[in-house]
Amino acid sequence: MRMVEIIHKKRDRVSLSSEEIRFFVQGYAKGDIPDYQASALLMATYLNGMTDDETLTLTDEMLHSGEVLDWSDIPGIKVDKHSTGGVGDKTSLILAPIAAAAGVVVPMISGRGLGHTGGTLDKLESIPGFDVRLTAARFREVLQATGLVLAGQTSEVAPADRKLYSLRDVTGTVECIPLICSSILSKKLAEGIDALVLDVKVGAGAFMKKKADAAHLARTLVSIGKRAGKRVVALLTDMEQPLGTHVGNTLEVIESVEVLKGHVKNDLSELSFELAAHMLVLGDVAPDMHAARRRVRELVDKGAALKKFQEVVAAQGGDPLALEDYARMPSAKRTEDVRAVGPGVIQRINAEEVGIAAMLLGAGRATVDSVIDHGAGIVLRHKVGAAVQEGTPLATLYFNDAKALDEAHARLKSAFTLGAEPPPKAKLIQRIIS
Amino acid sequence: MRMVEIIHKKRDRVSLSSEEIRFFVQGYAKGDIPDYQASALLMATYLNGMTDDETLTLTDEMLHSGEVLDWSDIPGIKVDKHSTGGVGDKTSLILAPIAAAAGVVVPMISGRGLGHTGGTLDKLESIPGFDVRLTAARFREVLQATGLVLAGQTSEVAPADRKLYSLRDVTGTVECIPLICSSILSKKLAEGIDALVLDVKVGAGAFMKKKADAAHLARTLVSIGKRAGKRVVALLTDMEQPLGTHVGNTLEVIESVEVLKGHVKNDLSELSFELAAHMLVLGDVAPDMHAARRRVRELVDKGAALKKFQEVVAAQGGDPLALEDYARMPSAKRTEDVRAVGPGVIQRINAEEVGIAAMLLGAGRATVDSVIDHGAGIVLRHKVGAAVQEGTPLATLYFNDAKALDEAHARLKSAFTLGAEPPPKAKLIQRIIS
Repeated sequence: MRMVEIIHKKRDRVSLSSEEIRFFVQGYAKGDIPDYQASALLMATYLNGMTDDETLTLTDEMLHSGEVLDWSDIPGIKVDKHSTGGVGDKTSLILAPIAAAAGVVVPMISGRGLGHTGGTLDKLESIPGFDVRLTAARFREVLQATGLVLAGQTSEVAPADRKLYSLRDVTGTVECIPLICSSILSKKLAEGIDALVLDVKVGAGAFMKKKADAAHLARTLVSIGKRAGKRVVALLTDMEQPLGTHVGNTLEVIESVEVLKGHVKNDLSELSFELAAHMLVLGDVAPDMHAARRRVRELVDKGAALKKFQEVVAAQGGDPLALEDYARMPSAKRTEDVRAVGPGVIQRINAEEVGIAAMLLGAGRATVDSVIDHGAGIVLRHKVGAAVQEGTPLATLYFNDAKALDEAHARLKSAFTLGAEPPPKAKLIQRIIS
Repeated sequence: MRMVEIIHKKRDRVSLSSEEIRFFVQGYAKGDIPDYQASALLMATYLNGMTDDETLTLTDEMLHSGEVLDWSDIPGIKVDKHSTGGVGDKTSLILAPIAAAAGVVVPMISGRGLGHTGGTLDKLESIPGFDVRLTAARFREVLQATGLVLAGQTSEVAPADRKLYSLRDVTGTVECIPLICSSILSKKLAEGIDALVLDVKVGAGAFMKKKADAAHLARTLVSIGKRAGKRVVALLTDMEQPLGTHVGNTLEVIESVEVLKGHVKNDLSELSFELAAHMLVLGDVAPDMHAARRRVRELVDKGAALKKFQEVVAAQGGDPLALEDYARMPSAKRTEDVRAVGPGVIQRINAEEVGIAAMLLGAGRATVDSVIDHGAGIVLRHKVGAAVQEGTPLATLYFNDAKALDEAHARLKSAFTLGAEPPPKAKLIQRIIS
């Protein structure tokens, strides 16, 4: 088999066989196939697409390019959630303890933030002592003991995907549904899960700006996930503005804990509870969504979800009291408000700009080597639809280092669009695909 | 400017600006842009095409990536011919002396053969002593003295093209008209010519199998060449079967000399004379094609063309007597006939298979490092349309080394298709585009 002939086929819109996809993935992972041939195939795939059969094979080959975890000795259905990413999206911190409290087994593997999006591991590290770098043995112990573990990869999961992803990033081949789908699923399936809830974001602040594209991605993810033998459901959710009000590491932990305490009722709590309910259904601990939603409320209201979160924090070496006394977490010494320039109704809050402003304050990484200030971030004081007066604080900047304060302030200010009329109300959960 | 954004534009069918194309060509030639980004752009170009403006800029940038020769101190219009390549195509050896004998200045830079196609330089080296590796100074001296020079590159011409061409070869992006066009023209225009006759082959033995593709390439070449300020004409010519009867280095020199002596009247002589006549018109030594054709015949009939060939052979250190006494050139010790398996009319002679059979006998290179046997090759005894009996010799293999004789024999035999009816007669010169 010759790589150039595989490129010819995809270029000429001929479907690739399983053997050809395997030859490519294995050869590329081993370094036998050079980057320049891989990138030609990626561009041909971007422009000519892939069938579901091809995408399934690609997913499967990438999945098996590294270790696949196995939790079959732990009873119960293992369920995880994956989000395509957004600003202020901290649903993992909320839904994972809820689902685990309900009896679902949640071996959640997360990543770090880069650019304008945050990472679950960074957020968890705001909790003093919390260790996200577990060995494989420790990961298993925590999961067995609490039914939940929140950590980074214990070994190299889907190395072929990591290599291909880096290449896609510099060759204009990121926004391609079969490639996105196989990248997401290969990593998630390598966690050894039985079921997966997908939160596919759509809107100005999301990777997928158009609903049709997001729906296409969601349908492909569900179809390929099911063909790979998993229970999968995808929710298409709004990312026109940041989710919730807090952006930044300690700040997002605080907002999540407040949701778990039942103190907050907003888009974040609504989406987190809904995603958690789907996890309960997929995990066979609730017969249907109606019962699942009731159970989620009950676990929050009775404090069982918060208790589960404290349990896993303690199990991973963290300080559970930090969830009661937020001052135990890194904080910002200084704050500054961003105020409305005139009266009006908030039409839009550009999530990407909010994310970049938070990054500039130190909450995120400009490059993979940047050091994070866990206390820094932004709290939105009003969201889309709110009527404000001139001078009303729209948001508050939290910071320790004022180096990029002016730029962050300006970006955050420009992220808000005011208008005369109330904007049309966006639906948070736009579609459910299963 | 960022390369990934240039890739995005071409991927999204947005035309590239001159600055973007310059950034790419210069950056790639210098090694600042990696192969994997270049190959993504090449594949996007293959699938999404280029406008004539883009192709012209690409040609111009590749042309100026190396030295551009200048013959302005030598009086007369400098004309060359380029063929897209075929088996048995030795027209250069015939038309160059004819055109030079007519007073056209012909600074002909040729290449070597690879795979199933032969190279003019290899053929010329069958003539004992003939030196194709001239210094720039010697190249100029020969051209000044004889109005003709037949050699390889004296310096690196269009290095960006060489680098891109190697990449195209391994990334499935060879057969792309804007890329082919800019590759051909950048190299030819770097020779410092004023006019160019293009022989665009079409058919089973050609790079372009379909007439529509070949016509598209020819039109693009003429359009871009003219926009680059050159006189250009393109002929679309048949390559369903090998051109002429002789394939292999000494053998092709012999057939060419026989044509120059007026001893041969076949498709090779017809095409060579016609291409030469176009060179005379472009070179302003004949007022029109009618006069040009008459002049070509005259130069052949009176021996002036052969004399010019002998003159250039002598000027480049070769043995002019070899063109009288063919035994002075390397020859094959052994021959073997390939015979018809039954009676019939020859329907097809697969040119590529003939070329591969000749290569197997030692006439061509399997890889760039292969050593050529100048005496080896094939002589076709009959061409398409000939009626043969069982056992009639269809072709003769010429060889010194019998290592791959069986395979060559089998391939050559299978290259012939016999049938009951005479096949439709293919037109040698199918279209003229100017």
